[in-house]
Amino acid sequence: MEKKTIDHLLRSTWQAIARMYNEEASKYDSTMATGFALLSIDPKKGTPSTALGPKMGMEATSLSRTLKSLEEKKLIERKPNPIDGRSVLIYLTDRGKVNRDASRVAVLKFNQAIKDEIGEESLENFHNTIEKINHLIKNKKIFSF
Amino acid sequence: MEKKTIDHLLRSTWQAIARMYNEEASKYDSTMATGFALLSIDPKKGTPSTALGPKMGMEATSLSRTLKSLEEKKLIERKPNPIDGRSVLIYLTDRGKVNRDASRVAVLKFNQAIKDEIGEESLENFHNTIEKINHLIKNKKIFSF
Repeated sequence: MEKKTIDHLLRSTWQAIARMYNEEASKYDSTMATGFALLSIDPKKGTPSTALGPKMGMEATSLSRTLKSLEEKKLIERKPNPIDGRSVLIYLTDRGKVNRDASRVAVLKFNQAIKDEIGEESLENFHNTIEKINHLIKNKKIFSF
Repeated sequence: MEKKTIDHLLRSTWQAIARMYNEEASKYDSTMATGFALLSIDPKKGTPSTALGPKMGMEATSLSRTLKSLEEKKLIERKPNPIDGRSVLIYLTDRGKVNRDASRVAVLKFNQAIKDEIGEESLENFHNTIEKINHLIKNKKIFSF
């Protein structure tokens, strides 16, 4: 059997992970996007709304939709930044903190299961390979020859 | 520095690849989704529209939007299936075939660059690791303990 291309493997594996996280989140009437957003917010100091997009790798429109839904579910609150009144800080509500912890446990469980299955050496190799792929992309050398 | 979780690495790497492909495709007034769709269509025998969704890992709504845009750009044609009149086959136009070849070259270039950089042994390890992760997800054991 011909081996699948690396981009295809990364895409289909990420999609499988997303399906798994969404399935698990749906048991709690939540979604993966919600869990990721909660994990990106500092539970103590809050997080500037402008920092969330880059942190989550999300476009402004999808992010604002996600934040609106989190606010409606009373998982977050928006407050003016005490240092810079023009910007907004996102804080977790108590309920948001509980859901954040649940998301954190799900992510840790999955990653621990992978670590247990793969072993230290292969995991190190996997990290190096991923790093090299990202390096290649950043250097933009692929399509210039 | 704390190591990033594996799901995070897969997500951000796939996003970096998607950005790179979209950037390259934009030089030809195209998108990554277009290129992937063209690559999923058999250039000789055509492909049933119903087979494309699962092949591309796309939801029916996004797929139908992509196919509509490909038809408008005169890259594909829909024809009734000669064997089963109720279903539809998607064929590439001559222009579609040229664009498919260009997409194929881009994918091959990127994957060859990775192979050259990473080496046979690490690549083998990478494939095994990805396979184990997918196996873990399929067995649905992660969240059952």
